Amino acid sequence: MAGELVAGVDLGGTKILTVLADRSGRVLARVKVPTGARRGRDPVIDTIVDSVQEVVRQSGAPFSAVRAVGVGAPGPLDQDRGVVFLAPNLGWRDVPLGAILGERLGMPVWLENDANLAALGEHSYGAGRGESHMVYITVSTGVGGGIILDGRVYRGAGGGAGEIGHMTVAPGGPVCNCGNDGCLEAVASGTAIARRARALVDDGRGAGILAAAGGDPDRVSARAVAGAAAAGDAEALVIMRDAGRYLGLAVAGVINLLNPSAVVLGGGVMQSGAVLWDAMLEEVRRRALDSSLAAVRVTRGSLGGDAGALGAVALALTPEY
Amino acid sequence: MAGELVAGVDLGGTKILTVLADRSGRVLARVKVPTGARRGRDPVIDTIVDSVQEVVRQSGAPFSAVRAVGVGAPGPLDQDRGVVFLAPNLGWRDVPLGAILGERLGMPVWLENDANLAALGEHSYGAGRGESHMVYITVSTGVGGGIILDGRVYRGAGGGAGEIGHMTVAPGGPVCNCGNDGCLEAVASGTAIARRARALVDDGRGAGILAAAGGDPDRVSARAVAGAAAAGDAEALVIMRDAGRYLGLAVAGVINLLNPSAVVLGGGVMQSGAVLWDAMLEEVRRRALDSSLAAVRVTRGSLGGDAGALGAVALALTPEY
Repeated sequence: MAGELVAGVDLGGTKILTVLADRSGRVLARVKVPTGARRGRDPVIDTIVDSVQEVVRQSGAPFSAVRAVGVGAPGPLDQDRGVVFLAPNLGWRDVPLGAILGERLGMPVWLENDANLAALGEHSYGAGRGESHMVYITVSTGVGGGIILDGRVYRGAGGGAGEIGHMTVAPGGPVCNCGNDGCLEAVASGTAIARRARALVDDGRGAGILAAAGGDPDRVSARAVAGAAAAGDAEALVIMRDAGRYLGLAVAGVINLLNPSAVVLGGGVMQSGAVLWDAMLEEVRRRALDSSLAAVRVTRGSLGGDAGALGAVALALTPEY
Repeated sequence: MAGELVAGVDLGGTKILTVLADRSGRVLARVKVPTGARRGRDPVIDTIVDSVQEVVRQSGAPFSAVRAVGVGAPGPLDQDRGVVFLAPNLGWRDVPLGAILGERLGMPVWLENDANLAALGEHSYGAGRGESHMVYITVSTGVGGGIILDGRVYRGAGGGAGEIGHMTVAPGGPVCNCGNDGCLEAVASGTAIARRARALVDDGRGAGILAAAGGDPDRVSARAVAGAAAAGDAEALVIMRDAGRYLGLAVAGVINLLNPSAVVLGGGVMQSGAVLWDAMLEEVRRRALDSSLAAVRVTRGSLGGDAGALGAVALALTPEY
């Protein structure tokens, strides 16, 4: 079975998830380790190399059976040259990760933006299988996205396509990390949900949310807000519904612009229960044009936290994605 | 020169523009006639046939030199089967225009949405030549759009892509023809600009705008507002700047989502002077992500009212667009 296997690596700011898979994308082994970004660039690269060797060891296959590695990395990058331009949560700038890993592992290494790979993962093995035109949106700490058109990753003119988190949905609204006001990320990310709840608590309100956070203002998170909303807390319901509505407004815009066959939503915040999801869908149904709404399936991702690593597997199997 | 020429027809609600062109897209003859939509479907089709015959006659070429016709029609349609589903301003529903014209003219007839063809026209012969990924936006009575990706018309899953006019840019704002609030078309189209100005005039304000309309409240149009703004009228300036800002907000969203190499803006309202244009650009520069902003050229269309007919020429020359 020489050359039949591939490894997929999802390099995140806090953890590295590595899987070994066969040609059909079936996962044979997986390893999840802390990234240890604070230790600097080279130890992180060592950890990636170790992870790939470890999944192969676990599988019992010889290392020679692995023919390629796909890697998803955060931030803007050049997938042709395999260079990560800027990854603030790794402290990286202009790191030729593809070349370094290729040399260390002795096989082709393909690099791609992590959101694009999560889109590719859901398209290849998850909720978006078989869709011609699919938009993937991940809502967690931030809001990211990836676009699959005619079955292939759409990267745009400079590799920067899919930044749905920075579409303006609330002009004049909260300021985003990018410096603008009213970005989707600034009103619908887990960070935005938690920030709004903390402001309530700091103001002496939000008792239900504070209780869901165990009474500790420092532990008021999007998860706590979702928990309080699920329990019927009125203030938490407003926060989750507003986030869902803004998300729906952006999704409807994407549907009207791109007429996709599917929109797949992943990330931790999308697992936060029915309140946000229903508000999102209601807004999509209201704002998407009938003909485009009829053509689209709006669905949750099915791969959870594995979407990126499985997308890296798909990339390693078919680099021309 | 048998089979060397093609005709391009832009079928609009008020006029039909037909051009005859050679293989390089050079226009040899053109005819513009009223659509006469009120007379019903068959007289309109007769007029299209007459127009094609007339441009050939004007050119002096034999009719046998024409090898195909491209037609741009309003509204949703099936370009593969050549059927116009719904064109309210023609009073049409489910008209098999491609088959009817093909039979009448005795040659292949290719049908496409008019906004997509205007995009294709600017991409083939106008301001978007050579661009890999181009978004075309037309701002006139309404706001429409067409998307060119990897040099080809992007239609989406059901032929409905490019409806940038129905992206929400002002949640809770003016109600659009589509029934939703805050669509780009509801705040930045010529109709929206005129409506806002008329509301001012009806309220006893907007003296400068009313003067630019010759003192006749019924003649308060987007053109009059643009004229008053160019002359420095404060109320007109606010209206034009607001429209420009909303347009810029949508353009920035499209840039962040699609990372195009060019955004080309056509339609009558884009010819209305520097006030709207500058406000649009300012908002784009503010809201587009730096890397995607650096990759994009934002420019006016260069073909004016001929964009659609020239796109129809490009389609007839290369139907696989």
